[in-house]
Amino acid sequence: MIKVGIVGGTGYTGVELLRLLAQHPDVELAAITSRKEAGMAVSDMFPNLRGRVSLRFEDPASAPLNTCDVVFFATPNGVAMQQTKVLVEAGVKVIDLAADFRIKDISVWEKWYGMQHACPELVEEAVYALPEINRAEIKGARIIANPGCYPTAVQLGFLPLIEAGVIELSGLIADCKSGVSGAGRKAEVHALFSEASDNFKAYGVAGHRHLPEIVQGLSRHAGNPVGLTFVPHLTPLIRGIHATLYARLSREVDVQALFEKRYADEYFVDVLASGQHPETRSVRSANFCRLAVHRPQGGDTVVVLSVIDNLVKGAAGQAVQNMNILFGFPESTGLQQIPILP
Amino acid sequence: MIKVGIVGGTGYTGVELLRLLAQHPDVELAAITSRKEAGMAVSDMFPNLRGRVSLRFEDPASAPLNTCDVVFFATPNGVAMQQTKVLVEAGVKVIDLAADFRIKDISVWEKWYGMQHACPELVEEAVYALPEINRAEIKGARIIANPGCYPTAVQLGFLPLIEAGVIELSGLIADCKSGVSGAGRKAEVHALFSEASDNFKAYGVAGHRHLPEIVQGLSRHAGNPVGLTFVPHLTPLIRGIHATLYARLSREVDVQALFEKRYADEYFVDVLASGQHPETRSVRSANFCRLAVHRPQGGDTVVVLSVIDNLVKGAAGQAVQNMNILFGFPESTGLQQIPILP
Amino acid sequence: MIKVGIVGGTGYTGVELLRLLAQHPDVELAAITSRKEAGMAVSDMFPNLRGRVSLRFEDPASAPLNTCDVVFFATPNGVAMQQTKVLVEAGVKVIDLAADFRIKDISVWEKWYGMQHACPELVEEAVYALPEINRAEIKGARIIANPGCYPTAVQLGFLPLIEAGVIELSGLIADCKSGVSGAGRKAEVHALFSEASDNFKAYGVAGHRHLPEIVQGLSRHAGNPVGLTFVPHLTPLIRGIHATLYARLSREVDVQALFEKRYADEYFVDVLASGQHPETRSVRSANFCRLAVHRPQGGDTVVVLSVIDNLVKGAAGQAVQNMNILFGFPESTGLQQIPILP
Amino acid sequence: MIKVGIVGGTGYTGVELLRLLAQHPDVELAAITSRKEAGMAVSDMFPNLRGRVSLRFEDPASAPLNTCDVVFFATPNGVAMQQTKVLVEAGVKVIDLAADFRIKDISVWEKWYGMQHACPELVEEAVYALPEINRAEIKGARIIANPGCYPTAVQLGFLPLIEAGVIELSGLIADCKSGVSGAGRKAEVHALFSEASDNFKAYGVAGHRHLPEIVQGLSRHAGNPVGLTFVPHLTPLIRGIHATLYARLSREVDVQALFEKRYADEYFVDVLASGQHPETRSVRSANFCRLAVHRPQGGDTVVVLSVIDNLVKGAAGQAVQNMNILFGFPESTGLQQIPILP
Repeated sequence: MIKVGIVGGTGYTGVELLRLLAQHPDVELAAITSRKEAGMAVSDMFPNLRGRVSLRFEDPASAPLNTCDVVFFATPNGVAMQQTKVLVEAGVKVIDLAADFRIKDISVWEKWYGMQHACPELVEEAVYALPEINRAEIKGARIIANPGCYPTAVQLGFLPLIEAGVIELSGLIADCKSGVSGAGRKAEVHALFSEASDNFKAYGVAGHRHLPEIVQGLSRHAGNPVGLTFVPHLTPLIRGIHATLYARLSREVDVQALFEKRYADEYFVDVLASGQHPETRSVRSANFCRLAVHRPQGGDTVVVLSVIDNLVKGAAGQAVQNMNILFGFPESTGLQQIPILP
Repeated sequence: MIKVGIVGGTGYTGVELLRLLAQHPDVELAAITSRKEAGMAVSDMFPNLRGRVSLRFEDPASAPLNTCDVVFFATPNGVAMQQTKVLVEAGVKVIDLAADFRIKDISVWEKWYGMQHACPELVEEAVYALPEINRAEIKGARIIANPGCYPTAVQLGFLPLIEAGVIELSGLIADCKSGVSGAGRKAEVHALFSEASDNFKAYGVAGHRHLPEIVQGLSRHAGNPVGLTFVPHLTPLIRGIHATLYARLSREVDVQALFEKRYADEYFVDVLASGQHPETRSVRSANFCRLAVHRPQGGDTVVVLSVIDNLVKGAAGQAVQNMNILFGFPESTGLQQIPILP
Repeated sequence: MIKVGIVGGTGYTGVELLRLLAQHPDVELAAITSRKEAGMAVSDMFPNLRGRVSLRFEDPASAPLNTCDVVFFATPNGVAMQQTKVLVEAGVKVIDLAADFRIKDISVWEKWYGMQHACPELVEEAVYALPEINRAEIKGARIIANPGCYPTAVQLGFLPLIEAGVIELSGLIADCKSGVSGAGRKAEVHALFSEASDNFKAYGVAGHRHLPEIVQGLSRHAGNPVGLTFVPHLTPLIRGIHATLYARLSREVDVQALFEKRYADEYFVDVLASGQHPETRSVRSANFCRLAVHRPQGGDTVVVLSVIDNLVKGAAGQAVQNMNILFGFPESTGLQQIPILP
Repeated sequence: MIKVGIVGGTGYTGVELLRLLAQHPDVELAAITSRKEAGMAVSDMFPNLRGRVSLRFEDPASAPLNTCDVVFFATPNGVAMQQTKVLVEAGVKVIDLAADFRIKDISVWEKWYGMQHACPELVEEAVYALPEINRAEIKGARIIANPGCYPTAVQLGFLPLIEAGVIELSGLIADCKSGVSGAGRKAEVHALFSEASDNFKAYGVAGHRHLPEIVQGLSRHAGNPVGLTFVPHLTPLIRGIHATLYARLSREVDVQALFEKRYADEYFVDVLASGQHPETRSVRSANFCRLAVHRPQGGDTVVVLSVIDNLVKGAAGQAVQNMNILFGFPESTGLQQIPILP
């Protein structure tokens, strides 16, 4: 049984962490902080937790985070980097669900996130933790940079092709669609029901913060720089990301076999049979990524379809998966709930 | 470990039963039948079950139902009554999620369901199984009539008032709203996305089959006939029922205390604090009923708000709860998943 | 051709007014104000107006409202009452879509709206303008109090019964469901897509501001005080109100004939045939109210189903209807678009 | 005033045609046919038309189609080709909203549509009618092949680039997302609310019938064969198509200026300012196509965003636009309603 703290649990990744951790057999929820809501019962904000989570939000200043085994940051960008040093020096593992430790090149990070980084030296140490790629590195880490939602769906989709060296690395396209919960639980007009319902649009085509993260990841797997066009869209569902990925094959290969082999031992990655199409609801509320790979009309353009629940495999679930690795629990512990359908 | 069969698992109550039973620690899924889909892997129809349920649909004629400990009927009305006799005589418990055994007065049943009943003698024996009301009776039953979705939400809402004898029994009103999954997984125009989305309507005001079921239940609790107006509505959500109940108080009473006391020991019924409003998503995918009771402007009209997930507490979850009672498992076994929010 | 101004056009009633007025053959849009967005092209905020409305938001201080023939206030409560006096003294008609002039009893208004009224004498003069009830009064008014959305749906539904004196005036129930646009275009967490989608809940059961407005209206039509329980609910649609109304008949009457006769000459009120159920989408984007009246099981409880588009007949459309009456245009001018279905 | 007939008006393109034609000043609705619903009032099926369309469905055999000026086929594929010959010989113009006359290469058509074509000679004569491309040809046509929804959005998006010869013609990608009404008003499980709501998926990646239609169109504009990967997706909105198009620039060009110039005189095509993103609701219920063109990171990949309402510019509206051209009415007659937002 490990003691777990959460910093900033009033958003959707926060409530999702609480849902997963409250059902995890090896976890004791020790503290959750919110400056603004200090004193409020967590279940008053999130009624699904009534009777299951008895914590109250605590002021960050007084919360017993230092005595936790691990602390999750479910905070806006720029918060974790302020508090991580103290925690890791106290022997607390840190898992950041925001972007503070994701980009190794500090100048790139500072450009895209519009602030100065508070602890570049910890960025170097931190492990960008996509377990299906670098499980071994994660095991010994003190600081986990939990990947973003789009980057998870996109990297898992391109990975087998890139590792096998069978596609052209320039001209990659990731046409991604996200449910509205990806925008968080912030009061913003564009995320209102009356704005986002019965509506579909692209956004951030000029440049989205997940672009450098994806490019960094793909380039690392490829061992060479990749050229990627990334177009995110907002679609009227609560949860779910659907990435439609396009690449040009550089040599003939059985893509179906390639994918099946690459993920044969991965519990959370499911390769569908040839010709199928994954749907976002098939992973709703669960930590799975389902993939299908197509070659329309048998040509050399390969199309990968990749779906995740942005709040689970794209955030809180992957964070718990990383926690399981850090503490030596079986990787699927507490993450075995069957997706909700319909 | 008990052996469980499901007859007719291609609908939404079927997949929900599968989701819950596959996660139940004391259950072995032995067989699932579908005449039409015999041979198909269940997970090909319901991709959320991939990797978790390896059953294939079997032809009802050859499926080993007789060797099960319990068989669930997730079939249209009129099917269970054809097959129950053979099963119970073979020592198999039967839990019918349809309406075949719900109405004690055969002539009433035949009028509302438009067919002749195949086994009136078994109707007499069957137990109408709302655990919060008649747990003791359920324990020894051979045939369980699992309540309908509206009847569950409405009865749990009116029950404390009726048992306490504090409301006028005539003039009860149940204004109910259901998500579209209540209409089942049948290809019908009115349930199409383009018909049911961004739309709200009442239906069946002249008379809905759940009316006699609710009246039977409330009258039994009251020990006297009740007069009920029941108006169901279709609302654009997948899962969820919200019942708004109106009654006139016949004597002064602390309704909040009444509700809290009545359900103090019920794990699956949650009475909200005074002044609150339950929302359907607070029970999404879980077996809870959340209730709030109001007296607007302090008058003698009492308003009860009652929410359930129609596929869980309103169908498959309550059926598993009844199974737990039948076999002496703790009542919440396999039913403790936290609701999904958002 | 009349000159029209709009104060506060950045909300949903504002854009809906613009949509309707831009298509009205007798209207010239002269000005629209917004302190916050002064200078912005209206069509930059509302892209549906691109190419059709060339106005920019102007600062209220400098906008030429005094030279308009009529000014609509699509503002929060408490704004119109500050500016109406100057306008009417300049000969400008005022149509307030908010609540400033709806409640005749100032102390009631001040209690429910939590502020002191700025011009009680104008409240007395203002006409509460539900055209189907008091068209004649509207014709000569200087100040129009445009009814609220719930009050429109509820009053039109109860009206024939109350005018005919055939129901008990105590114990009325209005169980109402509203789309999320009724909450306006304000950035608030409860109206986010991820909160309001796939969710259903009641709110304001203890008391909603539309209660005194409805009670005032019904009592006036009845000539006697009425007793009403009003329960609003939020349902996941963008537009639409469905009011389900319950009353007890005090004497035998053909309710279908009563409704048909009462609304025989009303262009915007449509009584469905006996046994039918109106759906909100049947009035989507149009100024109609569709009604059906039922007597379930032939009893003495009468159930009225009433649907409107909250932004049209419940706000902007009714305001334009009132403008048409004020200026002697045929009442349906500019309001004849066919509802959008699906 | 022209006399208009509709064959097969029980689907969504049918009701949309009715909505538009009933508001068209130069049209008299003469007949609408449905074998199955003969005798039923159109407004009983589509309540939005109550009071506005008094037609009843007629049996095709007896309907006075021969005396119409124009007949629209809003039928499944394969119907129009059976009846067009008789009509055009009687001097009736035919506008087919299905695919019977869209593909010039009969063998291609027969392969994709799985039936033998009934009148190849009429296919040759028919005009594939995208007014922004070949208005002149349309004027004199007897048979109009109204383009498909995806093909309209995709062709209008690629057109300026292809006409200007500034992109590589191989490796085009059209990642398209459609609302569910595109699947029609057929009772099919995959289009149920409970299946399609809160869900997102690709479909038909191996090959969709709109692929050959788009390729035919683009190749004709290019004067050379194009290579296209077309991936359609289903997204939970009722109306709307969003096409996200990718191409590689073959020479430097100001794409924004190119688009603005190409569509400067097109009433129904709206090019947004640089950096903007069109949203589907900005064209909801209207005949517009809104476009934006981007070059992410200033690279040589050009991204075009193209939105239409699939039932209007993608079907019924474009058909009316074509009718206007055929009969010499101003092209926007009856098509000027402002989109509904929110």
